[in-house]
Amino acid sequence: MPLSPEQQAEIDALRASPRPTLRAVSDGMERHLYTAYPVLDHGFVRVIDYMGDDAAICQAARVSYGKGTKAVSNDAGLIRYLMRHWHSTPFEMCEIKLHVKLPVFVARQWIRHRTANVNEYSARYSILDREFYIPAPEHVAAQSTVNNQGRGAALEGDEAARVLEILKADSARAYDNYEAMISQDGQQGLARELARMNLPANIYTQWYWKVDLHNLFHFLRLRADAHAQYEIRVYADEICRIVADWVPAAYSAFEDYRMGGATLSSKAIDCVRRMLKGEEVTEETSGMSKGEWREFMGVLGE
Amino acid sequence: MPLSPEQQAEIDALRASPRPTLRAVSDGMERHLYTAYPVLDHGFVRVIDYMGDDAAICQAARVSYGKGTKAVSNDAGLIRYLMRHWHSTPFEMCEIKLHVKLPVFVARQWIRHRTANVNEYSARYSILDREFYIPAPEHVAAQSTVNNQGRGAALEGDEAARVLEILKADSARAYDNYEAMISQDGQQGLARELARMNLPANIYTQWYWKVDLHNLFHFLRLRADAHAQYEIRVYADEICRIVADWVPAAYSAFEDYRMGGATLSSKAIDCVRRMLKGEEVTEETSGMSKGEWREFMGVLGE
Amino acid sequence: MPLSPEQQAEIDALRASPRPTLRAVSDGMERHLYTAYPVLDHGFVRVIDYMGDDAAICQAARVSYGKGTKAVSNDAGLIRYLMRHWHSTPFEMCEIKLHVKLPVFVARQWIRHRTANVNEYSARYSILDREFYIPAPEHVAAQSTVNNQGRGAALEGDEAARVLEILKADSARAYDNYEAMISQDGQQGLARELARMNLPANIYTQWYWKVDLHNLFHFLRLRADAHAQYEIRVYADEICRIVADWVPAAYSAFEDYRMGGATLSSKAIDCVRRMLKGEEVTEETSGMSKGEWREFMGVLGE
Amino acid sequence: MPLSPEQQAEIDALRASPRPTLRAVSDGMERHLYTAYPVLDHGFVRVIDYMGDDAAICQAARVSYGKGTKAVSNDAGLIRYLMRHWHSTPFEMCEIKLHVKLPVFVARQWIRHRTANVNEYSARYSILDREFYIPAPEHVAAQSTVNNQGRGAALEGDEAARVLEILKADSARAYDNYEAMISQDGQQGLARELARMNLPANIYTQWYWKVDLHNLFHFLRLRADAHAQYEIRVYADEICRIVADWVPAAYSAFEDYRMGGATLSSKAIDCVRRMLKGEEVTEETSGMSKGEWREFMGVLGE
Repeated sequence: MPLSPEQQAEIDALRASPRPTLRAVSDGMERHLYTAYPVLDHGFVRVIDYMGDDAAICQAARVSYGKGTKAVSNDAGLIRYLMRHWHSTPFEMCEIKLHVKLPVFVARQWIRHRTANVNEYSARYSILDREFYIPAPEHVAAQSTVNNQGRGAALEGDEAARVLEILKADSARAYDNYEAMISQDGQQGLARELARMNLPANIYTQWYWKVDLHNLFHFLRLRADAHAQYEIRVYADEICRIVADWVPAAYSAFEDYRMGGATLSSKAIDCVRRMLKGEEVTEETSGMSKGEWREFMGVLGE
Repeated sequence: MPLSPEQQAEIDALRASPRPTLRAVSDGMERHLYTAYPVLDHGFVRVIDYMGDDAAICQAARVSYGKGTKAVSNDAGLIRYLMRHWHSTPFEMCEIKLHVKLPVFVARQWIRHRTANVNEYSARYSILDREFYIPAPEHVAAQSTVNNQGRGAALEGDEAARVLEILKADSARAYDNYEAMISQDGQQGLARELARMNLPANIYTQWYWKVDLHNLFHFLRLRADAHAQYEIRVYADEICRIVADWVPAAYSAFEDYRMGGATLSSKAIDCVRRMLKGEEVTEETSGMSKGEWREFMGVLGE
Repeated sequence: MPLSPEQQAEIDALRASPRPTLRAVSDGMERHLYTAYPVLDHGFVRVIDYMGDDAAICQAARVSYGKGTKAVSNDAGLIRYLMRHWHSTPFEMCEIKLHVKLPVFVARQWIRHRTANVNEYSARYSILDREFYIPAPEHVAAQSTVNNQGRGAALEGDEAARVLEILKADSARAYDNYEAMISQDGQQGLARELARMNLPANIYTQWYWKVDLHNLFHFLRLRADAHAQYEIRVYADEICRIVADWVPAAYSAFEDYRMGGATLSSKAIDCVRRMLKGEEVTEETSGMSKGEWREFMGVLGE
Repeated sequence: MPLSPEQQAEIDALRASPRPTLRAVSDGMERHLYTAYPVLDHGFVRVIDYMGDDAAICQAARVSYGKGTKAVSNDAGLIRYLMRHWHSTPFEMCEIKLHVKLPVFVARQWIRHRTANVNEYSARYSILDREFYIPAPEHVAAQSTVNNQGRGAALEGDEAARVLEILKADSARAYDNYEAMISQDGQQGLARELARMNLPANIYTQWYWKVDLHNLFHFLRLRADAHAQYEIRVYADEICRIVADWVPAAYSAFEDYRMGGATLSSKAIDCVRRMLKGEEVTEETSGMSKGEWREFMGVLGE
């Protein structure tokens, strides 16, 4: 259960008392505010605050482009134009603040996105809870045989069971020993900043994470991608669902131009042109490496 | 007049229609929303949006420090503690979006603060208005005789009048010629992206500027300072007034620890200790340079 | 002439005295060090310092990917792989420091790239030189008739001559008056921080600009692009020429995947697939807007 | 042993072959290049590359301040002036690239400094080595009784021995099981990206970390501070030692104004002034909280 009854009561209270504001309001987002959407076995994502909406993106763009932008018939068209031409600053004018609970090894990937604000629970200052990520059996996957950085199909036979047994037992023992070391019952108690070093990377941490929409889209493009590790992708997927309700026009443009789009190299463009003229182009005549050609074929749906 | 009747009507309409939200609301800030506060002769500052309040700073800090922070009896005390110990991340959890109209030479100083989001009116795309900053006579100041980077007292006699005459005449001529060059009346018309090069640095531009509270405080410390150029300081002063209503506890801590505070070097601390023990310390026995000693005397109120 | 004899003598002295270092050395870059390459009528670009080379990019990537990367047969292949998969961090491990002299209106575009370090000549502190950008006649272009943000062909007939006359006369008068206002000959002299406001945007400024290779590539992709304003593009082109000698493998990958590449939306990819199956796809059946279709046709070379 | 014989051979080769360069060279830094200085039981810090020296800081400042800065008689004086007045941009003109091997719980603190470039060894891609941080007995400290976030004296009696026993045993077991899970001997082998979650936070990772001198000083001020956790402070101390040789004048100014300096609030300044006039000021009459007063007394050396 991701939230304590106490936390749930606080959320219910916050959701029960709307207040008037003169700011831009996204009705789609108001419905999500504070609600903790479960992710993995103990994690969650919930929206704490947001700034702006689709109209705010257009308003900022119109400051830049003045009267000229009035020619674009509607907001959705303007937003598509901005996304297509990599005009990123209007998207930076929207901001979201999330409360996320996630395993440490996921947090370590996530934090690599530097253009964001973070307040993480401090295990130097406070005691971590006994909550560990244990994958569902269908996600206990083998090392990929084609890609050093990835996983293949779920483990077969007893192997998955052995893995789950190890993860559970090691987590439990590590936490028992963490508690034993910091205990001040009959002993001084080890400093928390030291004791935490015994805890494995599947323990849960939590943070507030604040980011603007442009940088959030960049995060989502990388982390909601099929090549992202499953355990971070499920967070990205959940955030995608929320963003689609917050800024529907911007999210739709993001899906078309970023998530569903592809970048072709000058070699790849040349191949497409030759193919459209009827030429039979092969890996050998493409000038591409084996890997590039395979990816290019993927884009063409071959 | 900073705003057109059309813009004022839009502001009045926005201010007339509050909508319900579940987000944190700062009542002090709601009163300022959209209102354009005049700065200099044609400029203004107005708040377009904001995220968070004093409570949001504490909420973020409590994620980091867990139950420990509950010991601090109240939010104001916690905020003072965070400010004193340079715990900047909770302040980054608040965000403000301003619409600012300002002379180009002020904008050039302002943009040096890189950790912010900006959408500026594009003179490549659109035509700038005929609005120039002409200082009030009491601000037409002489070059400082003690500081290469600064100004002294107001110019005396006819000199100020001559300066004002030059600034007005050159601005008017530059704008007349700007218009003449881009005109498509009986000629092709020069590209706007080229014509703008004829305009002087006292022409007004405008932008949306979005920044988090930590970085805003850094901006204000430098730009609301007595050593800042007057023409940017008046913007900073106006923003200070707004921020004081938005996050009163954070602003109060900022005033005490940053605006009103001072950093002493190890040499200066050593001097204070010696003085408190009754020693007569002079510039010669302080180990400081002439400039350091003068600044140190300033901190001591001598 | 971009450099004073004094500056040229300093450059010659620096270039005459190589010193031993244990750091990575790029021979291609050493040849460029300190040399001021002229840009526009009074501007220049020169390399002051650099860190890293092609091998440094691979070295950093191999820290990340460990033994796995040894499989890639050579550095150029690894660099192409990193560029293709948007693995940007190894490119951030190279750094360049440039000294650039450029008109103020170009500097204002340039500074919008925030992830860089800048030290600009301060007109608050020092007196600017009498140097203004006056376009060559073939670059005195008309406003574009198809694009609000851009220029068309060179002005015809007397119009260009009139424009050049205006730019020269206004620059000269503005500078004369700048000098007259700050003069301390028989008067107090206006503060420099005020007097500078009379100077137009075609006056030259200069700065040191330091940036990592990843962010430099981003700058170059936007500013060496055919849609960039000519006056910034010539700087970008000059930097491209230098970077090609500094990190030849990285620059070659950048050319293929970024400068010469194109991003297709999911709609565009769908169209390509249908076309390759022999379907006749038109703007109407593409699902694209007029603008998107035109750009898509451009990618296909139609 | 921090480095393998293979790595040491590579370092020796690099150190044996200086090459000529025209760039700024810091002789003090050349002596450190590539050498791995041991930190903790298996960690190290070593300089991979650097850009700039004390003269480069002054050179950048002189671009900004023009002829005015020539008045400052020497580089050291100018650097002190820049540091005292928080003119940070000239310090950003120097850059350093470090290779650091460090425990994961230290890396998690370190990475919170966002303005830096990082390439970390990927446990998704590669297999981590069996190296864990086990504190020396004198560093196995009790939780602080005065500060939630900190540690007190070393544990007494058998307690430290029990802690060390736990840390060693749990690390060994976690690694044995990590190896067992990824083994492809008679089984498929768990994906590395999953198996890593079983490893505790005292396992060593490594990265390349590149940062400019201004941001490095900010890092050092926080992490070489007496309140920083011992395990990160030893890295900061080692880097301080290196920086002191690289940019001696800048480091000396940093020591005086930052490391050895202190920031006084407006209340504290008021108290100092009253004390110097002979008034007896107490916690009660100071207007400060208990915590502030204690810290203020610390600054005064009481």
